[in-house]
Amino acid sequence: MYINGVNLGNWLVLEKWMSPGLFEGTTAEDEYYLPTQLSQKVYEARIKLHRREYISERDFAAIRSFGMNAVRIPIPYFIMGDCPPFVGCVEELDRAFLWAEKYGLKILIDLHTVPGSQNGFDNGGISGVCKWAQQPDSVEFALQLLEKLSNRYGTNSSLWGIGVLNEPITERTWNAMDIQNRYKPVDLELAAGSAPISLDFLREFYVEAYRRMRRYLPEDKVIVIHDGFELKAWKDFMREAEFKNVVLDTHQYLMMAEMYGCEQSLEGYKKYVEEYLTGDIEEMQEYFPVICGEWSLFNSYGCGIDTAGGLSPVNGVEASEDKLNAESRKELYSQIALAQLEAWKKISGHFYWNYKLLLDTVNEPGWIGWDSWDLGKSVSLGWYPGEF
Amino acid sequence: MYINGVNLGNWLVLEKWMSPGLFEGTTAEDEYYLPTQLSQKVYEARIKLHRREYISERDFAAIRSFGMNAVRIPIPYFIMGDCPPFVGCVEELDRAFLWAEKYGLKILIDLHTVPGSQNGFDNGGISGVCKWAQQPDSVEFALQLLEKLSNRYGTNSSLWGIGVLNEPITERTWNAMDIQNRYKPVDLELAAGSAPISLDFLREFYVEAYRRMRRYLPEDKVIVIHDGFELKAWKDFMREAEFKNVVLDTHQYLMMAEMYGCEQSLEGYKKYVEEYLTGDIEEMQEYFPVICGEWSLFNSYGCGIDTAGGLSPVNGVEASEDKLNAESRKELYSQIALAQLEAWKKISGHFYWNYKLLLDTVNEPGWIGWDSWDLGKSVSLGWYPGEF
Repeated sequence: MYINGVNLGNWLVLEKWMSPGLFEGTTAEDEYYLPTQLSQKVYEARIKLHRREYISERDFAAIRSFGMNAVRIPIPYFIMGDCPPFVGCVEELDRAFLWAEKYGLKILIDLHTVPGSQNGFDNGGISGVCKWAQQPDSVEFALQLLEKLSNRYGTNSSLWGIGVLNEPITERTWNAMDIQNRYKPVDLELAAGSAPISLDFLREFYVEAYRRMRRYLPEDKVIVIHDGFELKAWKDFMREAEFKNVVLDTHQYLMMAEMYGCEQSLEGYKKYVEEYLTGDIEEMQEYFPVICGEWSLFNSYGCGIDTAGGLSPVNGVEASEDKLNAESRKELYSQIALAQLEAWKKISGHFYWNYKLLLDTVNEPGWIGWDSWDLGKSVSLGWYPGEF
Repeated sequence: MYINGVNLGNWLVLEKWMSPGLFEGTTAEDEYYLPTQLSQKVYEARIKLHRREYISERDFAAIRSFGMNAVRIPIPYFIMGDCPPFVGCVEELDRAFLWAEKYGLKILIDLHTVPGSQNGFDNGGISGVCKWAQQPDSVEFALQLLEKLSNRYGTNSSLWGIGVLNEPITERTWNAMDIQNRYKPVDLELAAGSAPISLDFLREFYVEAYRRMRRYLPEDKVIVIHDGFELKAWKDFMREAEFKNVVLDTHQYLMMAEMYGCEQSLEGYKKYVEEYLTGDIEEMQEYFPVICGEWSLFNSYGCGIDTAGGLSPVNGVEASEDKLNAESRKELYSQIALAQLEAWKKISGHFYWNYKLLLDTVNEPGWIGWDSWDLGKSVSLGWYPGEF
């Protein structure tokens, strides 16, 4: 099955920039600090309403109408409701499985956060902190949660598979993104000792996770491992017969390519995709079925400024005006979409990031260009091709 | 300009059945009682987040992509924030005007509730109460609000016009819908004295509203009056030269036609639209530009039961299973859509009710058929034709 999917990011795992209303009146930059600045009742009121309203049955119908066949659903480590003050959300995931069944979509569950964080991103749950791998209890927590999820959904006909852990960060990206400057920690004591994760640790964790998940997860369900932003590091991994139906997930953003030198122009992006990216992913497809679990149309050229690898207006980097007219913007995005979709045809599929955002580019022009992360809007505006 | 539009119902004026999460943990059936059962902080948290998340810029892009050119925005009487404990929402309307400008949509502001209520509907703000017309202060409040809105938005290029008052109820519909049994009042004392509104009162109110609004509203902006569910009662009204650019708004639901005897079948609905409805609206188009400000695909046949004029599962009337397969459901709705869209071509335009609902027909099968009120979903599923 070729995966033609989209992420339901910011539904069960929050990213402030995608729905700023949730964070209104607080200085919290991530999900970890949100409940510390609101009363428990107000926090619950916001989070529960967000989950009810942000994604509902109608969105599954819309995604299907885009010609897609799958959704990747990021979930937080506290999904089971066992980590107060955070509110669990497994009932929401249960409902999503029934919607998926009705509309003919498959689900990839994606463990997007773990206690102590695996990357220090805001979307890892707590900015500037990366200590999960150093905390045996937290590693065990993640493994047990993966077992629970495998047990709960393992035989569900709408389950495509489970992603072990989203974007664990290794030294290369930790340094390139200058994580603790980009995502500043709030509590220096809590952040102290944060460090990237070694590939050795990741390999060991993935093997352990595989073995514990497969106890519950039938072999026709995939187990997805993320490449840790080191796509080619996995050629000698899990070659043994024991490991069945393992998919390698790579996240490929043009903003990251820019950080490594990709020219910021339509031609530059196309050249990068066609001459570099396509070859790399094809090469890895010989070892694993590969998916691109996150990608988007977003790029600096569309923002009218060098975003320095996707630094957001929240970080104080923003364009003041729209330098592209509607037509050239559509040309830019639709060409980039086609180039990337062509690349994914060489592998086992892709999930766009993201289905939906709540940006207001009219009243807050700093967000111009950032709405290209929004698949729904990109389809509405013809940025994302209708037939794909 | 032919109006091809959709309502943004349940955004700034709530209807519990469209977003039940807002009312969770309360027994409130309408917006009036919601804050009485929540702390002010939790109420504000819910209502503000709902307004931020339910409709955003991306929805204006989607509506435009459906080929539409206008939105009708129901607003509550407390929009200016001068009626605690209710939270105002004029900033949201301001933002909508900027979105409309960007995406080439016109806005019809629709005063959907007034103090004391003009109809006793849940969507009139307070179920089972209809006393507005008997309270001179409340009538004056409405007039002053219409002036403020005319002043604030009168010269805005995205304003198409302002609707004076949504669905004031006269004796005919008050009786046919058995309002106080359908929408049971919570506080009998508060509801005591509720009564339908006379056509004489409405005529006088419309004239007064017209005169006070036109002080601020340029003559190229329309003033919309609702027919009070008596379409043909307005032939001799506002014939004087003084009244310029007045549009007559009629709401035409198949569920209402069913109450008056329309056969519950695809053929029955088409026959009703083609043989009765079309002639009636064409007749009135000789006196006013007429719009159908609310209509939908919803009908009892699609629910698999006689809904008795649209009584909802909330009222305990629900189908237990889906009697139509996906194909025959699509056939039913798309045929009904075409018949009605054909009828609206005889007049000055239409607004579908509604753009969006948050029903879950999978986990709550009582709502099967009710999702036809959702334009977005209807487009996704091919129920509503793509080219219109």
